[in-house]
Amino acid sequence: MLRPRSHRSFDKLRTNGVGEAQDERFAKEADLLLHHNRRALAKAITLLESTRADDRLRADALLDALLPHTGRSLRIGLSGVPGVGKSTFIEALGLLLVQQGHRVAVLAVDPSSRVSGGSILGDKTRMERLAAEERAFIRPSPSSGTLGGVAEKTRETILACEAAGYDVVIVETVGVGQSETAVAGMTDLFVLLQLPNAGDDLQALKKGVMELADLVVVNKADLDEAAATRARAQMTSTLRMVHLRGVHETTAPVTPPPVLQTSALKNAGLDLFWQTVEQLAATRRADGRFAARRQQQNRAWMWERIEAGLAQRFRDHPAVKAALPQVSEAVDGGTLAPSVAARRLLDLHR
Amino acid sequence: MLRPRSHRSFDKLRTNGVGEAQDERFAKEADLLLHHNRRALAKAITLLESTRADDRLRADALLDALLPHTGRSLRIGLSGVPGVGKSTFIEALGLLLVQQGHRVAVLAVDPSSRVSGGSILGDKTRMERLAAEERAFIRPSPSSGTLGGVAEKTRETILACEAAGYDVVIVETVGVGQSETAVAGMTDLFVLLQLPNAGDDLQALKKGVMELADLVVVNKADLDEAAATRARAQMTSTLRMVHLRGVHETTAPVTPPPVLQTSALKNAGLDLFWQTVEQLAATRRADGRFAARRQQQNRAWMWERIEAGLAQRFRDHPAVKAALPQVSEAVDGGTLAPSVAARRLLDLHR
Repeated sequence: MLRPRSHRSFDKLRTNGVGEAQDERFAKEADLLLHHNRRALAKAITLLESTRADDRLRADALLDALLPHTGRSLRIGLSGVPGVGKSTFIEALGLLLVQQGHRVAVLAVDPSSRVSGGSILGDKTRMERLAAEERAFIRPSPSSGTLGGVAEKTRETILACEAAGYDVVIVETVGVGQSETAVAGMTDLFVLLQLPNAGDDLQALKKGVMELADLVVVNKADLDEAAATRARAQMTSTLRMVHLRGVHETTAPVTPPPVLQTSALKNAGLDLFWQTVEQLAATRRADGRFAARRQQQNRAWMWERIEAGLAQRFRDHPAVKAALPQVSEAVDGGTLAPSVAARRLLDLHR
Repeated sequence: MLRPRSHRSFDKLRTNGVGEAQDERFAKEADLLLHHNRRALAKAITLLESTRADDRLRADALLDALLPHTGRSLRIGLSGVPGVGKSTFIEALGLLLVQQGHRVAVLAVDPSSRVSGGSILGDKTRMERLAAEERAFIRPSPSSGTLGGVAEKTRETILACEAAGYDVVIVETVGVGQSETAVAGMTDLFVLLQLPNAGDDLQALKKGVMELADLVVVNKADLDEAAATRARAQMTSTLRMVHLRGVHETTAPVTPPPVLQTSALKNAGLDLFWQTVEQLAATRRADGRFAARRQQQNRAWMWERIEAGLAQRFRDHPAVKAALPQVSEAVDGGTLAPSVAARRLLDLHR
C-alpha cells in the first residue's frame, strides 16, 4: 500500500483562508484520499470540477496537497471510432490489470457529453464487472461544455487518481474534433483502436490521429480472422509510410508504432497488449522520452491556462468590452485590418 | 485600370506622428502602389515585414490607407509534397491567367526559409517566364523564423497585393508542420497538388491536409496516363469517405472536393483547372460561404494577434519575468501543478 510520504503538505492548506473547522474536514478528506478511499477521491474530483470561485481556491489547495503523491502512474490514452469496442476493451484490460495487482482508474474526455447522459462512460453499467472491482475506479467525462474545460478537469483528475494510489490511468475519448489531440497531450502512451476492415485506415485519418498513436490495436479480430490480419498488415505499412515522411521532414528517426490484434470480447490478445505497453514505457523511461513528454505536457498545460486566463481578462476589461463590438464590425466590414484592430484593442488594454 | 476610390485615407497618415516630409514621401509611395507600381509594392511589403517598432507604426498607417482597395482578389492556397511540380504548375497557371487579362501575385509561406536562400521561391529564376511578365508579381517567403510570424506577414502582403491591383493571389506552401493550415486559413480556396501514384494518398494524409482541400489536382499526369487516372479515381473515393465521415460528425452535408488531372509541364488541364476554380468561387459567392469564410478568417486573425500580444506582454511583465524561472522549474520538477502555477503567475500579472 502506498503511504503518504509526509503530512507537511496539509499544513499549507491552513494558510489559504479557509475556515478552521472546514479546513480540518478538508485535511481529513485529503488524508482519506491518500489512503485510497474511493469516496474521498470521488468527492475530490467533484471539487476539482466545480466552477465556483471559492471551490477553486480549495481545489488549488487540494492539488498542492496531493501533488507530492502524483506522477507515479502509467497514463494511457485510448481512442477509436464508435463501435470499435472501447468499453469492452477497457473492461477486459482493466480486469486483467486488477488481477495482476494493479489499481486502475478509467476517465473520459467527451466534450459532447451532457449532465443528463454522457455518450461515453456516462453509464457505469457499460463496465459493470470492472466497476464492481475494489481496485478499479471509473469516472464519466466532466460535463462542462468546451474541450478546453473538459481537458483541464481531466488533467487534474489524473493527478487526484494518482494520489489515490491508482498506478494505471486510462483516459478514453471518442474522435470528436480535437479531443484525441487533447488526450494524447495528457497521457504517456496513446492507443488507437481500429476495426478489422482492411482498407479502412480512413478510420484513423481524420485530424491526423494516426500520428498521435504510440500503439495501434486491431480489435474485434474474432469477427473475421483473415480480414483482421490483412487490416493489421495494411495498417503497419500505412504507419511506416506516415512515419517515413516524418523522417524526411524532421530528420529525427521515428519508429512506427507497433500494430497488435485483439478480441476484447473473447479476452484474446490483451496479455500481449499489456506487455507491449510496458515495453514501450520501459524503453521510453530508459532513453528519457517518457520524462521529456511529461515535462513538455506540463509546460504546455501551464501556458494553455495562462493564455486562457489572459484572453478572459482581456474580454472582461471595460475599455476592450466597450470597443470590441465596433472594432469587430469594422473588421467584418473590411474597413479595419485585423492586425491593426488587434493592436488598437491591445492599446486599450494597457 | 483600378483607380483609388478616394484619397481620404491618406489624410489619416498625417496623424500618426511621422515627420511631415517623410509623411509626404510615404503618401506618394502608397499612391504609386495603388497605381500598380511594382517597385512601390515591393517596398511596401518590405515595410510590412520589418520588425522595427517605428516601421510598425508606419506599416499600420499604410494598411489603413490600403484597406479600402483590398479584398477584391481571388486568394488561392496551393500545397503539395516536394517534387509534385508546384513551381511549374504556378508558372503555367500564371501565364495562362496573365494571357486572360488577370494580374497575378505569387507569395509563399515557408517557415523554414532563411534570408540566405529560402527553399521555395527564394530563387525567382524558378519561374523565369512568369517573373518577366509585367502583370505578374512574385515574392519569396518572409524569412523570419516562426510560422506565426511568417503567416502574419503574408496575410498583410496579400492585402498590399490586392491594393496594387492583383486580382489573383496565389499563396504557395510546402507541407511543413502546420503551414498548410495557416495558408488554408488565409485563402479562399485551398488546392492540393498530388503525384500520379495510385495508393499514394498518404501524400496528403499528414496533419489532416486532405480535409483542408477545396480542390485536388493530380499533376504530372504525363508521366503515366493510366496511373494518373487510377490515382484520380482512388483520390475521389478517398475524399468521399473522408467527407462522409465529416457528415456523421457534424451533420452538415459536405460535398467532396473535385479531383482534376493536369500536366503543367505540357500545359495540359490548366484551362479546366481555372474554370473549376472560378465555378467553385462563384458557387460559394452565391451561397454566402465565400464571404463567411473571409469573415471567419479575419476574426481568427485578429484574435490570434491579440493572444500573441497578450502572451508577449505577460512574459515581459517584471513580476512574471522574475517568478517565471522558479515556477517553471517547480512545474518541471513536479512540485507545482501546472494549473496552479498558471493561476499564481496570472495573479502576479494583475
